[in-house]
Amino acid sequence: MEERRSQICLGLDPDPARIALAGGDPEAGGPAATADEIERWCREVMDLAAPSCIAVKPQLACFERLGASGWHALTRICERAKELGLLVIADGKRGDVPVTARAYAQALFGSAGLSADAATLNPLLGRDALEPFIEGAAESQAGVFILVRTSNPGAAQFQDLDAGGSPLHEHFAALVAGFADDLPGSSAAMSGAGAVVGATAPQHLERLRALMPKATFLLPGVGAQGADVGRLGPVFRVDPAGGIVAASRSIANADDPACAAATLREAVWDVSRN
Amino acid sequence: MEERRSQICLGLDPDPARIALAGGDPEAGGPAATADEIERWCREVMDLAAPSCIAVKPQLACFERLGASGWHALTRICERAKELGLLVIADGKRGDVPVTARAYAQALFGSAGLSADAATLNPLLGRDALEPFIEGAAESQAGVFILVRTSNPGAAQFQDLDAGGSPLHEHFAALVAGFADDLPGSSAAMSGAGAVVGATAPQHLERLRALMPKATFLLPGVGAQGADVGRLGPVFRVDPAGGIVAASRSIANADDPACAAATLREAVWDVSRN
Repeated sequence: MEERRSQICLGLDPDPARIALAGGDPEAGGPAATADEIERWCREVMDLAAPSCIAVKPQLACFERLGASGWHALTRICERAKELGLLVIADGKRGDVPVTARAYAQALFGSAGLSADAATLNPLLGRDALEPFIEGAAESQAGVFILVRTSNPGAAQFQDLDAGGSPLHEHFAALVAGFADDLPGSSAAMSGAGAVVGATAPQHLERLRALMPKATFLLPGVGAQGADVGRLGPVFRVDPAGGIVAASRSIANADDPACAAATLREAVWDVSRN
Repeated sequence: MEERRSQICLGLDPDPARIALAGGDPEAGGPAATADEIERWCREVMDLAAPSCIAVKPQLACFERLGASGWHALTRICERAKELGLLVIADGKRGDVPVTARAYAQALFGSAGLSADAATLNPLLGRDALEPFIEGAAESQAGVFILVRTSNPGAAQFQDLDAGGSPLHEHFAALVAGFADDLPGSSAAMSGAGAVVGATAPQHLERLRALMPKATFLLPGVGAQGADVGRLGPVFRVDPAGGIVAASRSIANADDPACAAATLREAVWDVSRN
């Protein structure tokens, strides 16, 4: 972040239907040809946006829908990201019983898997189901981003339910805070145990920062989902490394992805310094 | 179920370390060789257990940890299962914001994806995030199993939290019940919108059956996790198709998988008829 003066993560959510609009029909040749098109598209967007970004966040679903060909493309895209000096945040929102969580940790962080630098996780199954991910991440010097409050319109239905006097998402925040010492970060201020907090509900940011003082917030919702960068101040109160703003369509589908990424970088950098 | 007199689902959670114990080192040749070994092992177990089962439940994590090779093996295993007359329940516990949920639905139910007959889903993001899965399943005449109360030891931490007078998992149950009419099942009694309910916490079964009268319960926890088949009665009160007992290690790792599956089938069939 210091080196690139950036807290921007480029989301990669390739959509074959949209890529087709840009020329040709990528689905004409079957999944393998579509996967090649998707890989080409991701490389192009990454090459353009990389100077303003610190990370990429491939959306695993967008590759899985092409089967093994998609997974191949995903692996190569992760390799390319690392060549560009970008961290890889595998966005799959995994969560499962402990024995399976160990297998997912291998899939996300292991060398036969994605060798990702971080992954998004779902906390619904409880602490015991997250521990294998924390252990797997620690072994690979990777990090985790645990869902605390998501960015979708219906997030409040369960995540804001009052549970014993505080909303459910604050229980998740306490869980994240409890992992802070298990995953030390590269700076003393921040831990490797981060949180996904939608930028679309900025009213929660102050409270969540207080509950998770050492967590880096991964912030989706800026751009296509309409969140306001100007309201992200509380995220960065502890450190300029307190947040990573994830933007997908607003960079990748812009007429000039390099410019879109640079503009967002400046806006977030300013907020993080005030 | 009627045809095979069975409510048993064979869980496929291949573990390269364990397969190695049975002869050779499957990891010696890298992920591709390991994936071949895993495929061979799954085929063997399926061939033996199939006559007593109605479905297989591949645990996606166990294949993803081998990257694209693992996904290839998974695809072939799903094809083999269909040849054996077994339904395929893709166990990935997916859940994401609506635009991504649509991509996952393609990955799970689509022809370029797994063409699964059903998939397990995580409800934490709320109803809007599940709707694309319901739509995708309906288009493919598939079903869903939404996590309501999981089988892991720590499941109670969040899922049993009191939220407005009822535990969180009952809120999920209401959500599942609300989808019953959106996914008609092949029988009038049951819907295609099912629920994952751990057999390890049988004290919840009666109440959950009352809340979800048309949901088929997918019941993990029997076998290695120690749940008692004898306590599953409330599940089947509405219909012998009211529950599917998922067993993985207790069948696959048995000395005689065919016998283990047949024994479990009889035990569950008896309970479902009383």
